Amino acid sequence: MGHTHYTIALDAMGGDHAPESWFQGASYALQKVPNLRFIMVGDEELFAPLFKKYRKVAEHSTTLHTKDAIADDEKPSTALRQGKHSSMQLAINQVKGELADAVVSGGNTGALMAMAKLSLRMLPGIKRPAAAGPFPTQKGDCIMLDLGANLSASAEELLQFAIMGDVYAKAALGKQAPRIALLNVGEEDTKGHSEIREAAELIRTTRPDLNFIGFVEGHHVTEGRADVIVADGFTGNIFLKSAEGTAKMMRNHIKAAFSQDWITKLSYLLTYKTMRNLRKRLDPRRYNGAIFLGLNGVAIKSHGSADAYAVSQAIRKAAGLLQHATNQHIIDELNACATQSEALDSSHVA
Amino acid sequence: MGHTHYTIALDAMGGDHAPESWFQGASYALQKVPNLRFIMVGDEELFAPLFKKYRKVAEHSTTLHTKDAIADDEKPSTALRQGKHSSMQLAINQVKGELADAVVSGGNTGALMAMAKLSLRMLPGIKRPAAAGPFPTQKGDCIMLDLGANLSASAEELLQFAIMGDVYAKAALGKQAPRIALLNVGEEDTKGHSEIREAAELIRTTRPDLNFIGFVEGHHVTEGRADVIVADGFTGNIFLKSAEGTAKMMRNHIKAAFSQDWITKLSYLLTYKTMRNLRKRLDPRRYNGAIFLGLNGVAIKSHGSADAYAVSQAIRKAAGLLQHATNQHIIDELNACATQSEALDSSHVA
Repeated sequence: MGHTHYTIALDAMGGDHAPESWFQGASYALQKVPNLRFIMVGDEELFAPLFKKYRKVAEHSTTLHTKDAIADDEKPSTALRQGKHSSMQLAINQVKGELADAVVSGGNTGALMAMAKLSLRMLPGIKRPAAAGPFPTQKGDCIMLDLGANLSASAEELLQFAIMGDVYAKAALGKQAPRIALLNVGEEDTKGHSEIREAAELIRTTRPDLNFIGFVEGHHVTEGRADVIVADGFTGNIFLKSAEGTAKMMRNHIKAAFSQDWITKLSYLLTYKTMRNLRKRLDPRRYNGAIFLGLNGVAIKSHGSADAYAVSQAIRKAAGLLQHATNQHIIDELNACATQSEALDSSHVA
Repeated sequence: MGHTHYTIALDAMGGDHAPESWFQGASYALQKVPNLRFIMVGDEELFAPLFKKYRKVAEHSTTLHTKDAIADDEKPSTALRQGKHSSMQLAINQVKGELADAVVSGGNTGALMAMAKLSLRMLPGIKRPAAAGPFPTQKGDCIMLDLGANLSASAEELLQFAIMGDVYAKAALGKQAPRIALLNVGEEDTKGHSEIREAAELIRTTRPDLNFIGFVEGHHVTEGRADVIVADGFTGNIFLKSAEGTAKMMRNHIKAAFSQDWITKLSYLLTYKTMRNLRKRLDPRRYNGAIFLGLNGVAIKSHGSADAYAVSQAIRKAAGLLQHATNQHIIDELNACATQSEALDSSHVA
């Protein structure tokens, strides 16, 4: 550990293209972030040929053998009970035991969340973790949370999501005072259910230092009106998958439009470079890796269908969180917040 | 009234481009559906030059004069109290008094909903209206409801939305047995909050005749996995605006990509026809007009920013509902449903 390199435990058995996607993904990540070490968790028999194929990864890795893996349709409670020797649990244990700085998994989201919560515990003062990730807008990326770690969120939990999102956006987007907004069905103060209206009030009164801009609607998100979009996990997940589905539908339509006849095929060749850049910019693989903010440790969920490039992006997200010491900043922010409200409380008493 | 033509009351003061969008929209609608009559509700001074400009509309219209209009930021409760002489309320009154067969408005959604509910009342047995509308998928349109008429929905209300959606999809999409799904954050039975899980159970047990396929996620909607997507109004609205925002972002990116240099500009010309067809197919204006299903009358909300073409689509939706006698079919379905459960109840007693 320490300053010279970061060690990341990879649950190399999780995901549709596992385990090779993890080896190739690790090799891509090393090209961008050379100071990484990996603990490859999973079946060493399956790993052996992959270590031969990805020599650079082999030089940077150790292996933790297990043949157990969590099934994709396993209930979190069952996974917790019966998955003690699973690759997922062992990978998380590496962070708990301070043998690794972060864990990345492409397995069952609910199980990962439950295991990480139980093993790593929460940061002091945080009630629930939130899944956070970047989302493309017309003016660069924003950060969105919760993308689905919880089904609902109280006003106080939404406030905590806003604080964590603020810290993460400063690190990930490099913004000084990220514009924070609550995702709602209208902009007016009267819109939305009680939790979200109370959350707006709570953020305004308890954290006037945050750059809170109020409610935004879905199309304001893509317009780039805010840098941090706060929602409960059900709403955030619905938003995300609607956007992903729509983007995919449009990509397919465009592909079909270009392959109609020889003229459109020709014009595809003419615009190839531009279209490739556009595809790159909106590539969902680039956004792979949901971060469980609020855990006392760095845990990242890679998409189940992630290929090697997508996996490398999730690994790089873990490295970024470590480089920016995001969790320490969240702790500091919450402490500052607690001290502030204590000061307020005692001034009331006086 | 009757079989020869349909009369539609237009709240011609609501929307960003009112009142002209309503006159031009009515003239477009007449080109497609000649057997329409209009009651233009609003300021006759503003209407006078428009009747001169749109002669065909003048031949098919009467005027109901008022200078009052509901402001876009008016609270529904205030609108109800103070808006008795507003163009919106008067337009709704035409349906209530059976002077018109349907009402279309582009004004304040909350106010329209509250007024329509109070004036027209609900269909027998229906608890709450739902805003329904078509949504594009890779395999043709689906029907989605609730798009935002209510913030939440109980399991029983979601069941009613499913029944109403089924009837509407049969008429609007011409499908024999529309595939009905609940929008959720996962496909598995264990996913989602209690209302949605109970709703799935309720639909399965009480309406085995419906073609209910269970839960779908956002990207399944755009893949075209279901014909009727059921959600509470908060979720449906978040989904819709996320999709609209994403589609707009991609359209802007593509436009920018084509206008980069003379080569891409040339290829735009080469693909012009194909791109125009694509644009047409995904044109949000084509989908304008949310239908308040469950009301004892036909009431349609046109988007506030709707132009004349979009307005004409909302008017044509009203005509379609009337032609298919959708409300009568919903009543029949609910009656069949009630008779079924009464029969079940009495068999239990016996």
